[in-house]
Amino acid sequence: MHAYRTHTCAALTKENVGETVRLSGWVHRIRDHGGILFIDLRDHYGMTQVLCDPDSPVFAEVEKVRAEWCIRIDGVVKARDAELVNPKLPTGEIEVFVRDIEVLGTAKELPLMVFGEQEYPEETRLRYRYLDLRREEMQRAMTLRSDVVSSMRRRMWDKGFREYQTPIITASSPEGARDFLVPSRLHPGKFYALPQAPQLFKQLIMVSGFDKYFQIAPCFRDEDPRADRSPTDFYQLDMEMSFVSQQDVFDTISPVIAGIFEEFGEGAKVDDPASWPQIPYHEAALKYGTDKPDLRNPIEMQDVSEHFRGSGFAIFAKLLEQDGTEIRAIPAPTGGSRKFCDRMNAFAQKEGLPGMGYIFWRDQGNGLEAAGPLAKNIGPERTEAIRQQLGLDVGDAAFFLGGKPSGFQRVAGKARDVIGEELNLTDKNRFAFAWIVDFPIYEKDEETGAIDFEHNPFSMPQGGAEALDGDPLAVKGFQYDLACNGYELVSGAIRNHKPEVMLKAFEIAGYGEDEVKKRFAGLYTAFQYGAPPHGGCAAGIDRIVMLLAGTSNIREVIMFPMNQRAEDLMMQAPSEPSSDQLMELSLRVIPQE
Amino acid sequence: MHAYRTHTCAALTKENVGETVRLSGWVHRIRDHGGILFIDLRDHYGMTQVLCDPDSPVFAEVEKVRAEWCIRIDGVVKARDAELVNPKLPTGEIEVFVRDIEVLGTAKELPLMVFGEQEYPEETRLRYRYLDLRREEMQRAMTLRSDVVSSMRRRMWDKGFREYQTPIITASSPEGARDFLVPSRLHPGKFYALPQAPQLFKQLIMVSGFDKYFQIAPCFRDEDPRADRSPTDFYQLDMEMSFVSQQDVFDTISPVIAGIFEEFGEGAKVDDPASWPQIPYHEAALKYGTDKPDLRNPIEMQDVSEHFRGSGFAIFAKLLEQDGTEIRAIPAPTGGSRKFCDRMNAFAQKEGLPGMGYIFWRDQGNGLEAAGPLAKNIGPERTEAIRQQLGLDVGDAAFFLGGKPSGFQRVAGKARDVIGEELNLTDKNRFAFAWIVDFPIYEKDEETGAIDFEHNPFSMPQGGAEALDGDPLAVKGFQYDLACNGYELVSGAIRNHKPEVMLKAFEIAGYGEDEVKKRFAGLYTAFQYGAPPHGGCAAGIDRIVMLLAGTSNIREVIMFPMNQRAEDLMMQAPSEPSSDQLMELSLRVIPQE
Repeated sequence: MHAYRTHTCAALTKENVGETVRLSGWVHRIRDHGGILFIDLRDHYGMTQVLCDPDSPVFAEVEKVRAEWCIRIDGVVKARDAELVNPKLPTGEIEVFVRDIEVLGTAKELPLMVFGEQEYPEETRLRYRYLDLRREEMQRAMTLRSDVVSSMRRRMWDKGFREYQTPIITASSPEGARDFLVPSRLHPGKFYALPQAPQLFKQLIMVSGFDKYFQIAPCFRDEDPRADRSPTDFYQLDMEMSFVSQQDVFDTISPVIAGIFEEFGEGAKVDDPASWPQIPYHEAALKYGTDKPDLRNPIEMQDVSEHFRGSGFAIFAKLLEQDGTEIRAIPAPTGGSRKFCDRMNAFAQKEGLPGMGYIFWRDQGNGLEAAGPLAKNIGPERTEAIRQQLGLDVGDAAFFLGGKPSGFQRVAGKARDVIGEELNLTDKNRFAFAWIVDFPIYEKDEETGAIDFEHNPFSMPQGGAEALDGDPLAVKGFQYDLACNGYELVSGAIRNHKPEVMLKAFEIAGYGEDEVKKRFAGLYTAFQYGAPPHGGCAAGIDRIVMLLAGTSNIREVIMFPMNQRAEDLMMQAPSEPSSDQLMELSLRVIPQE
Repeated sequence: MHAYRTHTCAALTKENVGETVRLSGWVHRIRDHGGILFIDLRDHYGMTQVLCDPDSPVFAEVEKVRAEWCIRIDGVVKARDAELVNPKLPTGEIEVFVRDIEVLGTAKELPLMVFGEQEYPEETRLRYRYLDLRREEMQRAMTLRSDVVSSMRRRMWDKGFREYQTPIITASSPEGARDFLVPSRLHPGKFYALPQAPQLFKQLIMVSGFDKYFQIAPCFRDEDPRADRSPTDFYQLDMEMSFVSQQDVFDTISPVIAGIFEEFGEGAKVDDPASWPQIPYHEAALKYGTDKPDLRNPIEMQDVSEHFRGSGFAIFAKLLEQDGTEIRAIPAPTGGSRKFCDRMNAFAQKEGLPGMGYIFWRDQGNGLEAAGPLAKNIGPERTEAIRQQLGLDVGDAAFFLGGKPSGFQRVAGKARDVIGEELNLTDKNRFAFAWIVDFPIYEKDEETGAIDFEHNPFSMPQGGAEALDGDPLAVKGFQYDLACNGYELVSGAIRNHKPEVMLKAFEIAGYGEDEVKKRFAGLYTAFQYGAPPHGGCAAGIDRIVMLLAGTSNIREVIMFPMNQRAEDLMMQAPSEPSSDQLMELSLRVIPQE
C-alpha cells in the first residue's frame, strides 16, 4: 500500500464499498455524535467523511486529533444509510471506518479557522496565508488563476505565437512608473533595474525577426499600493507582432480575451469580439467620462451646452461664457423621482462638486411635465429640447454638470456608474468590451504648459512624421486600450519603429537627440538596422482573474501577496541586510531623521 | 490587400503561380546577375527568391536596397525553370517578380553579418543581439527553447499539476548562494531579496493544501559567472507534491524529462525511465568520481587497494598505510598501447597529480602479457588478479590513482571522461540518465572540523529524528539529483516537514532554536499548523536546452543574456542611478579606493 494514500479525498464512491483504503488530508471538522467521532477529512480534491467508533483499535488516538491536523488514516469503506447520503458531495454515498491512524503534522491553536465562513482581518490572513489558502474560496481562486493563465497560453500558441522569456535583472525600462533597482556587486555603485514591462525587449525581439512573441511576464513597479494594484510584482499577458496594423492586433487578441471570459465567466454574457465597439478616446471621455467605460451600463452622456447658452439658469449661462467649458447631461431612464434626483445630487456634492442640477419628467394626470428647479429656470422650450435630444420620457430624469470637462468629468463618469447601478440599468451578468482608440500622443502639463507624452513614448503617431509638423496636442497615436466593465484590461500600440520619426516625436516632448540616444540607446540603435513595423499589447492578468473571481481586491487572486505597505509579514520582507551584505554591494544606508 | 503581406516568406509554392502577392521581410542577400537583381527575402518562417529586372517600374529603388534592410514588396509569382528549382527550400519552385517596393526600415553598415557563417566575438554578438538573433542557428535555438518549455508545461499539466506563480520581490531564501537584494523605498534601510529558487514558497504551497505545484520559475543568484551558468537570472522547472515518497517524485518527473529528450533529441537514444539506475552518492563517487556521471561512458572505476597493500610498488603500498586512503583503477578497454597510456598519464600530470600508473595487456605472440612499470613492480600474480577483477583482456589498459579520494577523485572522474572519449566508448548519440540518491545530509569542513549542511537544510533525514542521534556524517537524506551525460539536470528532496526534526537537524549544524525561528520563521511557523509530508525537485531549463541544442555555452540558449561580467552592453545594464533615485532609497554608494 502507498505510504500515504490509495485515493484522494474526492475519489471514493459506492464502487469502493468494502475496500480497505488509505487517505491523507486535513481534519476539516471533527464532531462527537454519541461517542462516535466524525471527521470531515479534506484534501485539495475534496472531502470524505471518516468515522471512528469506540471499537476501533485507534479510538484513543483519533480522539486526540484537532482541526487542521494533517493525518493519514486506513479504514474500510461503507455505504451510508440512504437518509444520510449527501448528494452535494462526490463522496457523499460512503463513509470510511477508521482502523489505523498516523498523525503527519499536528497543529497549534488556529489563528484563523479554515472551516466555516468567518471573516478575518487581512493582516491575519496574510500572516497565516497557508491557513487562509486552505479555505475553499481561496483554493478556487488560485486554481482559477492557474487555469486562466494556462488557457491564455494555449490560445496564444493556437494563434501561432511562441513564448520567449525576457531578462528580469536588466536595465530601466521607461514605462513612466518608478523602477525597482538592484545593486550590482560586481560593478560597485551601479544598479540593475527590474523591468516595469518587457516593452523594450519585446520590441527588440521583433527587430530580431521573431514575428510573433508572447509571454506571461512578471512586471515590477515601485508604486504606492492600492486595492487593485500589487505594490511590487504583477503579471501581464504580453504580446507583440511584426508587419501588422492596429486592426491586426485587435483581431488577434480580442478572441483570446473573449475566449477566456467565455471559458471562465460562469455563463455571463460575453459580447462577440466582432461587435466590440472602437471608441475614440475623446468620444469615450464625452459619453462616459472615462477611458475605461463600463458598457454594461447603457447610459451615454451628451453635450447639451447649446440649451443652456444664454438661458435663465444663470450659473450655467455664465459658465459657458468662459473658454473650454460645456454643460453635459447624464440621462437617467427610469430615474424620474425627486427622491432619486436628490440622492444623486448629494452624491455629486460628496465627490466635491457643488452638486448636479437635474430635471425629471412625470405625469401627474396632466400629461408630460418637467420638474426640478432647472426646468423652471430655463423654461419649457429649452427643457423640451433637452428631453428630445436625450430621448427621455415620463419617469426619466437627466443630470447636468458644467464647467471645464477636466473639472467635472471624473465625477460625471462616477455618477453615470452609480445611476446605472441604482436604476438597475447595468447588466451584472455580462462582460462588455470596447477598444478605446485614437489616444492623443501628447498632453500639456496644466501648470507648466510643457508638452509631454501622454502614454508611453514609443507609439507611432497617426500620419507619421508629417503629423508631427502640426499642433502636437492634435496628434493621435496608434495606441489603444481594451476596457471591460469599467476596467482597463489591455493596453497597447503600434510602435514607432522609424528612428527619424522617433527623434522628431521626442524633440516635441523636449528630449534632444543626445538624450534619446543616451536614454533609449538599445532600442534607438536597434532601429538603425532594419526594424520591421510592429505592434502589440499587454493584458493585466491579475485584473482579469479579479473580474472572473468577482472580487475587487487583487490580493484575493495572488498566492502570496504583499500587504498594502508592501510588506510580507509571513516571510518578513523587506528586512535589514547584514553589514557584510551592504559592504559587498558598496552601499551605506543613510540614517533617517 | 494587407498593408504588409499576403503570405509569409515560406508560403508560396507552384499553386500560387500567376498571383500578385505582397511579402515583407529582410534582405538576406542581394545579387546582380547580368543586370537582374536577385534578393533572398527572409522572415521568421523562411526565404523567398525575389527578382527585379530593369523592366520593373521600381528597378531604381530596388537597386538601392542593402543587406538586412526591412522591405515590403509586391510582385507576381512565377514558376522557376526546371533547372533552377531548389528542392531544399519550401518556396524553391517559384520566384517573385517585383512590381512595387516599400522600404520599411533601412540598415546602417552591419557590425555582424546575418548571411553566411562567419564567427564573431561574443561581445559583438551580445551588443548587436538583434542581428545575431536573426541568424538561422539562433532562430532555431530560441524556438527550441520556447518549444521545450511549452512541452514541459503540457507534460506537467497532463500529470495533474497546476502552475502557480510565487513572489519575485520577496525575502531571502537560504539556498546557499548569494542573494540579489532590492532596496525598499517605503521602508528605508530595509531590502527585499530576489528568490534563489521558489523553495520556501513551494513548500508553503504544500502546507496550503494545493497537493501538486509546478512553475517555470525565474531564479536569481548573484554568482560569479561561468560558461554554463547565467550570472543573474535563470529558469527552472520547479515542482513539489504532497503525500509522496522519493520514488513517487521519480515516477512523476522521469517521464517528463525523458519525454522532452525524446521529443527534441533529434533521434538520439533516450533510456527508458524505468531503467534509469538509482546510484547512491558514495557509489557514484567511487565508480565515476563525480555525483553527475556521464553514463554514456561504460567505464566504472573500482577499488583495487587490496592488490597493492604490501606490494612491491612502494608508493602505493606506503600510501595505503595512511588512514582513509585507497587505490582506484580506471579500466580502459581497447586502450592497451603505451602511446595511449603515456598520453593519459600526461593528462593527469596536467591536472595537477603526480601522474597515473598504468598496466596494459598485449599479446606479442607469446600469449597474454602485462606491460608497464606497475606490472613489474607488483609481480604477475597481483597483476593478473587486477586484470581479473576489472575484466580486462589483450588490448585493454587500466590506470591507477591513489591517496585520499578527496585528493584524486575529481581528476579520476575527468580521466574517465577523457578515456571514454578518446577510446570512442562514449555513445555520442544517447542521453543517459541516472538518479543519484542517498546524499549525506551533513559534511565536515576539512579545515575547521565544523559540521554543516551538505546541500540545503530542508531535506528529511532517512530514518527521521532517530537517525540524528548517531554520527551526523553517516546520516543520509531523501535527497537526489538526476544526472544526464555528465550534467546535473534535476535536484530535489523529500522535505523535512516536522518542526521537531527540523530543530534537531539544525542543532547538529550549529543553529540554535532561536536562530532557526528567526531565519526560517515563515516555514518553521507554517509547519506548526498541520504540515503534510511533501517533496519535489527542480530541473534546470537552460541546461536542458543547452544539451538539446548541442552547445556548452548557456548564452546560446538565452534570448538576451548578460556577458560574463554580468553586463548587458546592448541595454547598458548595470548603470549608475541618479542621485534622486539613491536619495529615495536612502542609500549612499561607498566610494571605491
